Amino acid sequence: MKRIEPKLLKGFRDYLPHQMIARKQIIAAAEKVFEHYGFSPLQTPALEYAEILLGKYGADAERLLYRFTDNGGRDVCLRYDLTVPLARVAAQYPNLPSPLKRYQIAPVWRAEKPARGRFREFFQCDVDIVGSTSLAADAECVAVDNDLLDALGVTHFQININNRKILTGLLESLGRDGADRQAEHSILRSIDKLPAMGEEAVRRLLAEENQLEQAFIDHVFAFLGIAGSNDQMLAGAGKLVGASEVGCQGVEELRQVVAYAVALGVPADRIHVDFSIARGLDYYTGSVFETFLLDLPGFGSVMSGGRYDDLISTFLGREMPAVGISMGMDRLFSGMAELGLIEETKTPTRVLVALLGPELLPDALATAGQLRKVGLPTEVYFDNARLKKQLKYANNQEIEAVVILGPDEVATGQATVKLMETGEQTQIPLSNLAQQLSSLIA
Amino acid sequence: MKRIEPKLLKGFRDYLPHQMIARKQIIAAAEKVFEHYGFSPLQTPALEYAEILLGKYGADAERLLYRFTDNGGRDVCLRYDLTVPLARVAAQYPNLPSPLKRYQIAPVWRAEKPARGRFREFFQCDVDIVGSTSLAADAECVAVDNDLLDALGVTHFQININNRKILTGLLESLGRDGADRQAEHSILRSIDKLPAMGEEAVRRLLAEENQLEQAFIDHVFAFLGIAGSNDQMLAGAGKLVGASEVGCQGVEELRQVVAYAVALGVPADRIHVDFSIARGLDYYTGSVFETFLLDLPGFGSVMSGGRYDDLISTFLGREMPAVGISMGMDRLFSGMAELGLIEETKTPTRVLVALLGPELLPDALATAGQLRKVGLPTEVYFDNARLKKQLKYANNQEIEAVVILGPDEVATGQATVKLMETGEQTQIPLSNLAQQLSSLIA
Repeated sequence: MKRIEPKLLKGFRDYLPHQMIARKQIIAAAEKVFEHYGFSPLQTPALEYAEILLGKYGADAERLLYRFTDNGGRDVCLRYDLTVPLARVAAQYPNLPSPLKRYQIAPVWRAEKPARGRFREFFQCDVDIVGSTSLAADAECVAVDNDLLDALGVTHFQININNRKILTGLLESLGRDGADRQAEHSILRSIDKLPAMGEEAVRRLLAEENQLEQAFIDHVFAFLGIAGSNDQMLAGAGKLVGASEVGCQGVEELRQVVAYAVALGVPADRIHVDFSIARGLDYYTGSVFETFLLDLPGFGSVMSGGRYDDLISTFLGREMPAVGISMGMDRLFSGMAELGLIEETKTPTRVLVALLGPELLPDALATAGQLRKVGLPTEVYFDNARLKKQLKYANNQEIEAVVILGPDEVATGQATVKLMETGEQTQIPLSNLAQQLSSLIA
Repeated sequence: MKRIEPKLLKGFRDYLPHQMIARKQIIAAAEKVFEHYGFSPLQTPALEYAEILLGKYGADAERLLYRFTDNGGRDVCLRYDLTVPLARVAAQYPNLPSPLKRYQIAPVWRAEKPARGRFREFFQCDVDIVGSTSLAADAECVAVDNDLLDALGVTHFQININNRKILTGLLESLGRDGADRQAEHSILRSIDKLPAMGEEAVRRLLAEENQLEQAFIDHVFAFLGIAGSNDQMLAGAGKLVGASEVGCQGVEELRQVVAYAVALGVPADRIHVDFSIARGLDYYTGSVFETFLLDLPGFGSVMSGGRYDDLISTFLGREMPAVGISMGMDRLFSGMAELGLIEETKTPTRVLVALLGPELLPDALATAGQLRKVGLPTEVYFDNARLKKQLKYANNQEIEAVVILGPDEVATGQATVKLMETGEQTQIPLSNLAQQLSSLIA
């Protein structure tokens, strides 16, 4: 039989135990923070009808969908994010609580060109609040962002906030038709490329793709260039969008979100008003958030989101406000690894029962059973091997203690316990092993 | 804009909060048991090259693969189980610990005809031990099975064990060529249908599809009909396969696995030798396990698995023994629900801060922040609504306490706390709210 080469698809990854144990700690921290804010878990399928996802993200994004025809001839897609499936859920079940506060931690798939830190399958950790127009909901997303990074030991970060209505207002006050959402989205997507492409390239995009005049583009960059404290920036933007009602509303909303986030306990110096934050996805309508690790310049946002008050209505047929934020698990993990914040653990096992002969296997298994009963994660070395090899295995796996059970030990009812860090050996009566070993490696 | 009907693909499900909270308790229990046995988490992608999965499960199973051509022209499949991807991993990374004990909890996809308790996307919780030929590893799978169901409060169940070598031995002793694995797998798959189709239909399958003679089929059913205690059944099978070396080996292995499982602490009366357990998948080579809830006859197995010593070699080019067991999360969940073992919780929120006017929002947010700091999952009612509506929301969501913060409360620095179960109201100083409320609803 021909051997099949074991290989992964490009842009996909396996997480081996030492990586996965650390990832699970991040997931556990996220779940704890989410639940402290009253978010409930919710789960949607990996596959959706294509028509559910299409027309929501914008053309650039939708080229990246994994789309195919299933065995029953249905046009289906792997989910691209967790937000559009949530919008479907919010429209589909009339008896959900309102507001609905849900979190979901799950993979999404995008056929991106793989690059450093960019994968075709990656995990998102999302919280969303559906059914509230209150700006306190937007602020809560900022607070969850802050608390989660705090809980993970990431302290040096910055949450950048903007409101899409401000840019809409700017375009309006410059004489653009506010009703042309397609053109506006296209301008937003061009601006969104600013960190990656730089000013000159974005100016060219705005001139060529969006057919804006030079004076118009200068105005946009004057707006993007407003600097200073949050209050100064809000005042400056207020002046620029002065003639536009929606623009003024955007400035006022942004001011409120910042104030509410501070009331929730987010340190004020972590919140930055930043008019260049546009977000690449079409569905945002108000607040938008991005989060940057200050010790990794150019690394990209690790938590992002915003308000999307129009998305659910495409399924529901009536208005349904919503706001949310998403932690990009894989990017945050690699950022934390670069910052030395990931502690690697090789195994949950704390005790290895060494096997000194196949006839002792039933004793070794029974001993392991006793240790597990008191909550000690325990492995038995199943196969025949010299003690030296078994100790080497324990050493490589960073297991804390090895219980050596030879014929003498079984005969006298005394186990030999070796503590791997110090090399110290002690005799412990088998009848009392679980209790004594628990306190020994507590 | 045309409204798009929010709908799910057939055979797929959303898990709403009250269902998902209960599922997460099962997952947490599984992870705890798995880690007590020293299994480490490991994660593989949802998509694999088709050639990785094809030729492993048998023709019946492989018709159910979600297979498509991706944007880059690659022939890919959604994973069908977690075992074949693990086999790829075990062959792909030379520096994994040996033995490798891993668990994975993840969805798999099969384009089955949807039916009660059968879905196209479902979650498996797998443990596997790669690199050990010891039958203690097989027994450990049985012990994990037992401990997990115990931990979930499912006490009335039975783990049925068989060994494929016994049937191979029977076929050999009846004069079949033992080397014809295809024919043997086909016979096994027919026998596997016995619980679903009954004896007569399986006899017909064996006669027509497998072209076995009547006397041969009678022998097979004599074997399947052996009854009695585990020891009696092993003795009976030993006689029937007497002439076959592999058959005797199977009987001896089965005897050992039962003995080791008992040594590990599995109650002997939960382990049943059952020669009709064949398992539908081709890759099993030795022990096979299935687990039945005794209070739900005909419900199907909730945890299944076995030894597959040849699978990894298809990727590795040399022998690599392995054994594992898989809990079918969705089936077990629905079984537990039928048995009344699922307690529904609607939200993690324990305290609601009621809002008596938009001007009090910053105070409400700050109060919620204080409560979260002491570990109390807290929600703020963001939107303007009468207190009655807010209390109704708390009641529907089964939230334990409501903190009422009106202008008087803020002025006097005293919050009104309503305990929802009793309706009791008390005044608590805001400066000490977090501590007092924690002990009040402890």
